[in-house]
Amino acid sequence: MAKEDVRNELIESGLKLFSRSGYAATGVKDVVDETRVPKGSFYYYFDSKEAYAEEVVRKYSSKNAEARQRLLTDKSLPPLARLRNYFERGIKVNSGRNYSGGCLLGNLTQEVSDHSELVRTDLSNALGNWQRDIEAVLVEAAESGELPAYLDPKATAAYILNAWQGSILRMKAEKSARPLEMFVEMTFDHLLK
Amino acid sequence: MAKEDVRNELIESGLKLFSRSGYAATGVKDVVDETRVPKGSFYYYFDSKEAYAEEVVRKYSSKNAEARQRLLTDKSLPPLARLRNYFERGIKVNSGRNYSGGCLLGNLTQEVSDHSELVRTDLSNALGNWQRDIEAVLVEAAESGELPAYLDPKATAAYILNAWQGSILRMKAEKSARPLEMFVEMTFDHLLK
Repeated sequence: MAKEDVRNELIESGLKLFSRSGYAATGVKDVVDETRVPKGSFYYYFDSKEAYAEEVVRKYSSKNAEARQRLLTDKSLPPLARLRNYFERGIKVNSGRNYSGGCLLGNLTQEVSDHSELVRTDLSNALGNWQRDIEAVLVEAAESGELPAYLDPKATAAYILNAWQGSILRMKAEKSARPLEMFVEMTFDHLLK
Repeated sequence: MAKEDVRNELIESGLKLFSRSGYAATGVKDVVDETRVPKGSFYYYFDSKEAYAEEVVRKYSSKNAEARQRLLTDKSLPPLARLRNYFERGIKVNSGRNYSGGCLLGNLTQEVSDHSELVRTDLSNALGNWQRDIEAVLVEAAESGELPAYLDPKATAAYILNAWQGSILRMKAEKSARPLEMFVEMTFDHLLK
């Protein structure tokens, strides 16, 4: 395999294992065992587990940003319908996983951000990008008069993203779609009305 | 030491270590090392690390419920001012910890709820009790006409608690009070208005 392919395979393995088991419970050996990469070569590709986690966060973030931006810039729908559609799709994705795993960014923020300044910075950037994509839709909604004038798009985007993260967390505690459905109802039927 | 004192000391050690390092990264040895309890006696008090985590969750939950209920039932303030006061106190507590640690219930939900049905049930109960205390204040606010009539106290309490959990998570990523301050502003100046 080409060097870049091996590196990618290791990162994909991390996406799966960190989502399933978390950071501390995933050893470098587990990562390598998931792949066809020979044991002991991990440190040829990454300086440390921490540097590896940074790459996993960046990959997760860029994959999700792509899918998100496709939905959030779909001009066939008005801005708030687009945003609602995006979160409703999120409910389907989480239902398909039986409400397990949740969001890797949220999971790693809880587990790692106090212990690695490097990974914390990547997580902060990834959440910041996510927030900005939501803000862009809210700015459009403000321009078209859909968003109540007293709501600031930036603060509202932050609140919505954080409420979504908390609803994902609650979904994991309840093993139910209800917290996510309640999020969509409260956000779109009340907060943004 | 009396048996109950040793048990309590071990649970207090877990409150500290699980908050600081998470579940997987905290070994039984770390728990015992934090106490004056002789090594090897952990399993005399708890059947497993999982059973121990359950007790830690219950202790955290009951400690927090006490402080919360004191603030949320303080009839010297109108209901929504009381609720706002409660969350503003939460901001102070988190600032005093330099935005680290966050909420043990949130942390363990992310890390453990997919792996232990026992601990998940305790977490779900603890979050449910927390939600019900918020709901009780919102019911009072509805009765006094403070809460907009279109807001259902139960759904609103769930949304607020989940948004708070997500804001705590975001605080850990940003190492800043801003997500919590934004939560208070958006919740009390917009959602509940």
